[in-house]
Amino acid sequence: MDVSSKYLQHAVEEIASLPGIGKKTALRLALHLLKRTKSEVEHFSGSIAQMKEHIQFCQKCGNISDEEKCGICSNPRRDPQVVCVVEDLRDVMAIEATQQFNGLYHVLGGVISPMDGIGPGDLNIASLLSRIEDDKVNEVILALSVTMEGDTTGFYLYKKIHQLGIEVSSIARGVSIGDELQYTDELTLGRSIIQRRPYEQV
Amino acid sequence: MDVSSKYLQHAVEEIASLPGIGKKTALRLALHLLKRTKSEVEHFSGSIAQMKEHIQFCQKCGNISDEEKCGICSNPRRDPQVVCVVEDLRDVMAIEATQQFNGLYHVLGGVISPMDGIGPGDLNIASLLSRIEDDKVNEVILALSVTMEGDTTGFYLYKKIHQLGIEVSSIARGVSIGDELQYTDELTLGRSIIQRRPYEQV
Repeated sequence: MDVSSKYLQHAVEEIASLPGIGKKTALRLALHLLKRTKSEVEHFSGSIAQMKEHIQFCQKCGNISDEEKCGICSNPRRDPQVVCVVEDLRDVMAIEATQQFNGLYHVLGGVISPMDGIGPGDLNIASLLSRIEDDKVNEVILALSVTMEGDTTGFYLYKKIHQLGIEVSSIARGVSIGDELQYTDELTLGRSIIQRRPYEQV
Repeated sequence: MDVSSKYLQHAVEEIASLPGIGKKTALRLALHLLKRTKSEVEHFSGSIAQMKEHIQFCQKCGNISDEEKCGICSNPRRDPQVVCVVEDLRDVMAIEATQQFNGLYHVLGGVISPMDGIGPGDLNIASLLSRIEDDKVNEVILALSVTMEGDTTGFYLYKKIHQLGIEVSSIARGVSIGDELQYTDELTLGRSIIQRRPYEQV
């Protein structure tokens, strides 16, 4: 694509390097930015540069943070003895959005995936284990994806944490609210029958 | 969405302000950028700021350019007496990609659209008319979209340019190459019958 300006060309290439954005979309976005005022564009590019410069990872849980300790870990009203283990910081946001969890988190930064060369040593597992002892954690909730990698990671963590004599639980798996049984996959439906529980009136 | 860092929040809001990018995609892109090295992120944000700072619009045709005159207008091997009028600079790129046109362009910067409050005075029409006289242009090709606004603009330009005694043509409209007749819309098919031309062996 010949765009008759090397500056535009360069910006388009950078934007197109983002995941899921092709050359045509990148060009559309670049031309959109070009139509804005200079100060708006400076705000745009500055916000990205500043994000990279200032964001840290919480030393305790691995969540992103503007301080050494993230807002969740430094909140005195949350229970530091219950830790929810997640793969990614987007999972933290998703669980926070439910407003159903009052403990702290631990972000692994991925899952064990031998195919991609990611072993336990590449994840924040050592810090989880030391934290369990230091903070006298009494329950670890595993909230990992239901994939082969997620299950492998869950099993690995279960073995490690169970050795310490700590209770390990996993978030419930079953038929989603609003889902019709006939369209639910066999594995989920099968598990939901095996893991049935006493009827509760809601 | 609570993202536990005001820098991330700010970057996500800026990215989500781009057309066609929602909050979730913006977060995904911001987290992707966060994983890159600091110099990569500086390149990214710098390329956008520099684009805005350095890009000019060609004084002759309105195309984007790094100089006062764009590469097409300043190319001595192109015919300055044939001018192709387009709506947008992406149309210039599209026509350039065909390698079938050797004249110059004129970018209107939009089409006449009373619904959006865009009249002839908001487009680069005055510069087109003065250019036709100054450069002794002998053919103007209208390459506008086949929409009501495009047709209105075409008709307006035709009247203005025809007055000057200059030949005005329009790019051919018809059934696209590779299209099946039964799936072609009635208007296009109808026009393609009316505007039929002598059979040519290709």
